[in-house]
Amino acid sequence: MSAQPLFLRGRRGAVGSLGETALIERIRSWLGAASPPSPAGIGDDCAVLARTMGRGLLTIDPVVYGVHFDGRVSAAQAGAKVMKRNLSDIAAMGGRPVSAVVALALDDRVSLRWLRAFYRGMAREALRHGFPIVGGDVTRLNGAFAATVAMTGEAAGRVLTRSGARPGDWIYVTGRLGLSLASGRHHRFTPRLKEGSWLARHPAVRAMMDVSDGLAKDLPSLTPRLCEAAVFEGMLPLSPGATPRQALCDGEDYELVMAVAGGKARLALERAWSKAFPRTRLTCIGRFVRKGDAPPGSINPEHYRGYEHLR
Amino acid sequence: MSAQPLFLRGRRGAVGSLGETALIERIRSWLGAASPPSPAGIGDDCAVLARTMGRGLLTIDPVVYGVHFDGRVSAAQAGAKVMKRNLSDIAAMGGRPVSAVVALALDDRVSLRWLRAFYRGMAREALRHGFPIVGGDVTRLNGAFAATVAMTGEAAGRVLTRSGARPGDWIYVTGRLGLSLASGRHHRFTPRLKEGSWLARHPAVRAMMDVSDGLAKDLPSLTPRLCEAAVFEGMLPLSPGATPRQALCDGEDYELVMAVAGGKARLALERAWSKAFPRTRLTCIGRFVRKGDAPPGSINPEHYRGYEHLR
Repeated sequence: MSAQPLFLRGRRGAVGSLGETALIERIRSWLGAASPPSPAGIGDDCAVLARTMGRGLLTIDPVVYGVHFDGRVSAAQAGAKVMKRNLSDIAAMGGRPVSAVVALALDDRVSLRWLRAFYRGMAREALRHGFPIVGGDVTRLNGAFAATVAMTGEAAGRVLTRSGARPGDWIYVTGRLGLSLASGRHHRFTPRLKEGSWLARHPAVRAMMDVSDGLAKDLPSLTPRLCEAAVFEGMLPLSPGATPRQALCDGEDYELVMAVAGGKARLALERAWSKAFPRTRLTCIGRFVRKGDAPPGSINPEHYRGYEHLR
Repeated sequence: MSAQPLFLRGRRGAVGSLGETALIERIRSWLGAASPPSPAGIGDDCAVLARTMGRGLLTIDPVVYGVHFDGRVSAAQAGAKVMKRNLSDIAAMGGRPVSAVVALALDDRVSLRWLRAFYRGMAREALRHGFPIVGGDVTRLNGAFAATVAMTGEAAGRVLTRSGARPGDWIYVTGRLGLSLASGRHHRFTPRLKEGSWLARHPAVRAMMDVSDGLAKDLPSLTPRLCEAAVFEGMLPLSPGATPRQALCDGEDYELVMAVAGGKARLALERAWSKAFPRTRLTCIGRFVRKGDAPPGSINPEHYRGYEHLR
């Protein structure tokens, strides 16, 4: 898939052949229209941000070679991924992206050609979602490659947090779950920004988060105190070929999971959703119930939590 | 100096002995009062920021083991340093810090005891300067340790950028320069936040930046088009034992350098400074002149720029 190697054997064509100032000039040219002039962009001690009216959001997520991507992934996809991981966090709050900074830590032998494609991948996501890349930092890291993006966002209306679910609320999830890593979807996904800000405007939605570590590991953060999540395996929206266990545990789905109030508002939400997003599923997969009150046939996703590794 | 090793031999007492959720719980407890409850702090997809009135600022800076600190430095000093590097950037714009997020990339064998001291070092800086640590990310990075901090800030009045200097402006610098790495001052320095916001309110100051890579490398960013910096070696405020070359090239001074308009305003600035900051020097070291117009006896710091390494 990726014809270009990340690490070269010699200095020729590698990052180490340039000085820091020259590398930053290259980065600026690779980013092109995604990087506004200073002080709104690269070139000052801090970036000066555009004024916004809503609540400010801040998140940070890296991609590390060997952890979040490997040699089978193109440089452009890896660059897109670090942006999309952050965008998915902004989406989960019902916000829109405002600006991003990129801290690069890399070996001297990183290929400039690879790095250009990586930055172009980041720039494409920035232009697609309408936010600038306003600054960053470059540092040496022997034998490794890590790019850390911090992103600011804005929630124009309500900020949808992980807390707010109540006992009896229904659990809904966007899209399909499972096999994201095996199918390569974790590189191709589109962050649910439109869906997230739409859902934040709907009063039936009480709490929301993105599914990044897998439903089994993520759902506890959404579960109200003294409650458990009662999920029906048969209701899980499975990716083609995925088993329920994979839908619960695989992770990197970057879908949205939310708590929805019962009654008429829930049906209104379903109807409005299918008009607004006819090509994307919004599926009820279960309910938050008081501990011990889980209906027969439901499962508690927490029991599917495996060994938690650092990632 | 540092009794605690960063990397342990086995898993016992190391980060790898904990799951991700447990580690994040520890981090929250280590940060203590520096970490507010969610959604203003750790625990949601994004942190929701406090509302501010001024212009928003954003910066990002890492510390990498083996690059920005080593085994001779205590964990608490390393943690303080990553915060202070970002604070110095905020100071250079005349701003105040608002919030910070921390992305950790580390080997499984990193000592939990070391990491606790590192986080306490970060928390102390946050409490000292009155901003919260609102979130972050933890990821694996074999054989290494890197902590990347992104910081938001606010400039209540004027934002002081690197551009704005005019031909004939005088060059001033705070504090003393040189030998920061050799003397350990790069770990003990106090970011010039008070001085920065004070200088931003003074109309004689036209442009400003912090001295992080050394005056020789940093001054060109402040120099107006078609001009050069004419610096008088004898006027450089030297750290005890430092030579002029070290003051120009050593780097990591974290002082402020600025362009100051000529005339009466300059003298008013000097007088007001010595009342406001009687214990800190503000020294005129030269002037921005049209290329070729440098007075006899002055030097152009650009000629002192050595090999630029990635750092």
